Amino acid sequence: MSPTPAWVKQLTPSGPQGHELLKQEREKSNVPVDKLSAFLFTKEVLERKRRVLKVLQSEEVFDKSQNYFAGRVDRFETALARAKKLRQLTVKHKWSQEDFRAATELISEPGPYGLHESMFLITTRDQSTPEQRERFWKPADNYEIIGCYAQTELGHGSNVRGLETTATWNSDDKTFTIHSPHLTASKWWIGSLGRTANHAVVMAQLIIDGKPYGPHPFVVQIRDLKTHEPLENIHVGDIGPKFGYNTMDNGFLLFNQVKIPHINMLARFSAVDPKTNKYVRPANPALVYGTLTWVRSTIVLQAGGVLARGVTIATRYCAVRRQFQDRDAKEGEKGETQVLNYTMVQIRLLTLLAATFALHFTGKGMMGLYEENQKKMSADAGQAADTKRGAGPEETHSGSDLLADLHATSCGLKSLASTTAAEGLEVCRRACGGHGYSNFSGIGPWYSDYLPTTTWEGDNYMLTQQVARYLLKSARSVLKGNKPTNDTTRILAHFLRKSDIGAAFDVLGRDQDLVSAFAWRTAFLTFEALKHRDEQKKAWNDLLVDFYRLSKAHSQYLVVKNFFEALEAPATHNELDPETLGLLYKLFRLYALHTLEQEASEFFSSSACTVRQITLARNNAVMKLLEEIRPHAVRLVDSWDFPDWQLDSSLGRFDGKVYEDMFYRASELNPLNKITVDPYPDSPVLFKRDERERLNSKL
Amino acid sequence: MSPTPAWVKQLTPSGPQGHELLKQEREKSNVPVDKLSAFLFTKEVLERKRRVLKVLQSEEVFDKSQNYFAGRVDRFETALARAKKLRQLTVKHKWSQEDFRAATELISEPGPYGLHESMFLITTRDQSTPEQRERFWKPADNYEIIGCYAQTELGHGSNVRGLETTATWNSDDKTFTIHSPHLTASKWWIGSLGRTANHAVVMAQLIIDGKPYGPHPFVVQIRDLKTHEPLENIHVGDIGPKFGYNTMDNGFLLFNQVKIPHINMLARFSAVDPKTNKYVRPANPALVYGTLTWVRSTIVLQAGGVLARGVTIATRYCAVRRQFQDRDAKEGEKGETQVLNYTMVQIRLLTLLAATFALHFTGKGMMGLYEENQKKMSADAGQAADTKRGAGPEETHSGSDLLADLHATSCGLKSLASTTAAEGLEVCRRACGGHGYSNFSGIGPWYSDYLPTTTWEGDNYMLTQQVARYLLKSARSVLKGNKPTNDTTRILAHFLRKSDIGAAFDVLGRDQDLVSAFAWRTAFLTFEALKHRDEQKKAWNDLLVDFYRLSKAHSQYLVVKNFFEALEAPATHNELDPETLGLLYKLFRLYALHTLEQEASEFFSSSACTVRQITLARNNAVMKLLEEIRPHAVRLVDSWDFPDWQLDSSLGRFDGKVYEDMFYRASELNPLNKITVDPYPDSPVLFKRDERERLNSKL
Repeated sequence: MSPTPAWVKQLTPSGPQGHELLKQEREKSNVPVDKLSAFLFTKEVLERKRRVLKVLQSEEVFDKSQNYFAGRVDRFETALARAKKLRQLTVKHKWSQEDFRAATELISEPGPYGLHESMFLITTRDQSTPEQRERFWKPADNYEIIGCYAQTELGHGSNVRGLETTATWNSDDKTFTIHSPHLTASKWWIGSLGRTANHAVVMAQLIIDGKPYGPHPFVVQIRDLKTHEPLENIHVGDIGPKFGYNTMDNGFLLFNQVKIPHINMLARFSAVDPKTNKYVRPANPALVYGTLTWVRSTIVLQAGGVLARGVTIATRYCAVRRQFQDRDAKEGEKGETQVLNYTMVQIRLLTLLAATFALHFTGKGMMGLYEENQKKMSADAGQAADTKRGAGPEETHSGSDLLADLHATSCGLKSLASTTAAEGLEVCRRACGGHGYSNFSGIGPWYSDYLPTTTWEGDNYMLTQQVARYLLKSARSVLKGNKPTNDTTRILAHFLRKSDIGAAFDVLGRDQDLVSAFAWRTAFLTFEALKHRDEQKKAWNDLLVDFYRLSKAHSQYLVVKNFFEALEAPATHNELDPETLGLLYKLFRLYALHTLEQEASEFFSSSACTVRQITLARNNAVMKLLEEIRPHAVRLVDSWDFPDWQLDSSLGRFDGKVYEDMFYRASELNPLNKITVDPYPDSPVLFKRDERERLNSKL
Repeated sequence: MSPTPAWVKQLTPSGPQGHELLKQEREKSNVPVDKLSAFLFTKEVLERKRRVLKVLQSEEVFDKSQNYFAGRVDRFETALARAKKLRQLTVKHKWSQEDFRAATELISEPGPYGLHESMFLITTRDQSTPEQRERFWKPADNYEIIGCYAQTELGHGSNVRGLETTATWNSDDKTFTIHSPHLTASKWWIGSLGRTANHAVVMAQLIIDGKPYGPHPFVVQIRDLKTHEPLENIHVGDIGPKFGYNTMDNGFLLFNQVKIPHINMLARFSAVDPKTNKYVRPANPALVYGTLTWVRSTIVLQAGGVLARGVTIATRYCAVRRQFQDRDAKEGEKGETQVLNYTMVQIRLLTLLAATFALHFTGKGMMGLYEENQKKMSADAGQAADTKRGAGPEETHSGSDLLADLHATSCGLKSLASTTAAEGLEVCRRACGGHGYSNFSGIGPWYSDYLPTTTWEGDNYMLTQQVARYLLKSARSVLKGNKPTNDTTRILAHFLRKSDIGAAFDVLGRDQDLVSAFAWRTAFLTFEALKHRDEQKKAWNDLLVDFYRLSKAHSQYLVVKNFFEALEAPATHNELDPETLGLLYKLFRLYALHTLEQEASEFFSSSACTVRQITLARNNAVMKLLEEIRPHAVRLVDSWDFPDWQLDSSLGRFDGKVYEDMFYRASELNPLNKITVDPYPDSPVLFKRDERERLNSKL
């Protein structure tokens, strides 16, 4: 391909340049970006990010230039090279867990060591006896063996109890036989397994004397430690290309009567006694499954930042992109309007900007609740906090109200937060118009990689059943007259108490009333669902849609509450100046009121609001808040502090050089431009075969 | 990679096999699939599809096995090879336009000849003088030159009037100079241009004597006809990887003072007189832009089928996939429940199934309206129906009410139909749980390729302004007392007439009332918007969100109306048996009532319904309809008649062999499994370098 000619290189975009426009945007607001960033993330986190970024940028393997162009095999090879380099850097620089996580966030793609680093290490550390920890976790921690966590099967994902892989105890030689009785028993979706891991923790149905004991964890070697070939009677490989997440080798795994020694069943909580050949039962059966609570809490914590990447890109781009003169423009206002000035764009982007902050504070609140729970559980006799995967939705819990509340909260918020982030990213991408469809926007690929979060760790629809079950249980308790013990029972009791008086929430005039209106709506829907289940005896399956709506309502209440409480906290009032704090309150109102008017019919039918209030929210309050927030939009996204290197986006560059960057990538970096085709129907495709071979050899 | 071992090959899925389950599904319904298909598409269309499919399947180049695996350069090469073969087959078999279109639908990917076949041929045929047609269209029609249509620029998409590329008339040597004055003038997104085309119709600002005359079409040779190298002073290439649509080479194009002869300005409707050097004005300036109406109408026509592919796949898969026992299951019902039996899945999929039929009938209605308009316009003196691209939203029309109604209708329906299809596809993908994320589901890649339809041919948000403008204009006319001349003015007049009496629509008891309720809501929102604009004098920009809601309401009314009228038509009652027709009426009610309860707050605030009616719709009517339609779901998607070859989906196979197919693709077809890595951090990535090279040489 011809290099970019000189006459092209001297061209610049027309009209006000992108960087001029962003400069003007930053000048018309006085939001103290650095202070706000420090408030959101702490100086320590920001400093760490900069330090780690410098190291990454100095290593060629992390260069992102070809990321969007490369095919799957190349992407995977590069990802593994990056994973190795990251490990080397971690050792060399003695990086902490936080440093390591900062690095992975900056690199912004899943890597083939991912499940080794998380689930394999965590499981071999936390579910092992001391002897097993020495045998399995220690070499894993030194990367002498590379592992993964093989639970999901072709035929079973959500219903963990239904797993088909078997682990049969052989009392004669004290071994287990791991076997895949059907095709659907094949492990599937197992991260780090497809090409990389040589070990796996395999969740398999324990069978002793023909009797099943449910899924338990077994360490199995999968591949030869030297040749990396699959061991005999094991069939393993990559499951193929996905909608995104293609830098990870998700794998399949089948066993044909593979024997493993007794020691390989991780036995901290349950075991087979080799002398008696009997199952040794754990104190709390739920601990065998562990909980997904920790994982769900981290999903909630991350959702705000995930969405904020898309909002940052779209906001900056829509401030640079100009199209059409204002219909009502006065004479002399000749230029085309910045797209971010259109209210139809603002109602999509600025409400999502508000959501990023809502999710951020909710994530912190969620993590606070989780850690409080951890402390309490550690204090409770003998029950070490369990932070492992594996729970199905049928998991039972201790009677602790705090734990039950945490569990339900994490389910509901995981569902709402990840849906909000995923769907919000697509709104951001679409708001960028035509150029949003190019991978150079950085939003599409990011969205594609994030999308499975709406399905894994509990499908977002399925999870709502657990929330509903908890709310129904709480409602029954309140109806019985039991004293409220947590926020959930408190809002239900309040609703009952006021049911003869009715509600009157000044949602447009008083922030606390806005929060209370969300609580009221949740309580109303809870008691409606309870009527359907307990009085009308409707089947569970017939109430699933009700449960989905109920869970969503409860979770939206929690987000609004968490956002409000974070702003009300004394620490917040101390750290932020009144103007910035006032702006955050506006974001809070925008999030809450926009959500309210989107869910208008439930707020109306629950009598939390009048039609008039809803109409005013929709047509007046929300529109006014958009207008007030608009001047600060660019500075607000700046406060999320994403380095350009992390975003890898032409549209979202800090300096606004959108068109120059798009053009550079297309004209200089694009491998497709290195081949010349023959366009005529009756000739072969390629004009010069050698070009293609030269390209292949570089790939 | 080790081939699939024998012990794996003999494995089958557990429990009731997929094909058994689908067989049972088909047995429990008596929907006459063949009859229904013939009713929907006509026997001629179905027969054509089978005939063309046979030809395609016999040609190796169309084999889809590697589609999901290949990287972008390979995908493009293969796509061009397929485009060439398709051209050869068209010539060899003397295929008609309909045969050709059937072939492209079966192949299911955009191809590098796409814009040559459509816009370049259409424009050179319809905007040429007879001499120009001979000079440009004839060799294009013979594929002696390959062209594209270069309108959109880096800096301008929606606002066509703002295009920056210039075409300056040189009165001395009777040429035009085509020039790109800024970087943002670069043509961008131009299909078939990136690597393939050697000509382009370039939309450029005509300048005569320093005076601008707006965008006009100019034929420009881009590449050498023999070497295919770009001509001097032209910089052209591919714009890079996109979220989808990567079998098309969308290109960029810059000019550095390139001269073209006078004859190259397509002059059927406007020209520069070479003797007088003056602009010769067309009778109707709008014809210079052409209209987008035809393109938008085809988008509406196709939307049902686009969505139906996802619904077919998800419905079949959710009938095969089983997970969890029913909580309320009686003793003896041991097996896990088909996912399609969960009401939370039904409310997502079966409502979309209803939408596919709604869109299908609306598309036909839309096309009928378009063709009626064509006839009328041909009859009108001298104005040949214009079916070309190029209009911006500022286009003006003749006074014809029919044309204005068609234009607004096409804008609103394009917006609603493509949004429904695109967002519906993602709902289908997500309803398939974990496996929906694999490309083997066939939904993700299809969605990715379809997604730009929500942005091009009029951004789906922007288009709603045109609908609103038309509705406001109609409302003003009705307020003045003018007699209604079309359906829009009729429903507005009706609303006015009844505004002192109020409405009473038996939406749950009478289908016609259900349609009327949608009309009422539209009229209410129209007069509300008119109040905001004409009485409160709100700025246009402040009303954009109102306009979006108004346009959506109007378009939803049109869909419901078209669906209903199609079912009421005598031809329908003649062709379909009462039971099948009854089922279609249920689908109509499901679509309309589900939409109603989703848009509950507007139906309530417009007083089209009571809260009670909405609650009953949501909790009773819709849930009951799901139950009644459920047994027929598989046969209903069968009636959309998608061959497995077209869908290319493991999850959506007619025979339900989901797991076998997924496994086969992963284990046998997957190139990533042909490389062996070294997993340890301090070693190079690849264990055997030659494997990678062997793989490359095959790619």
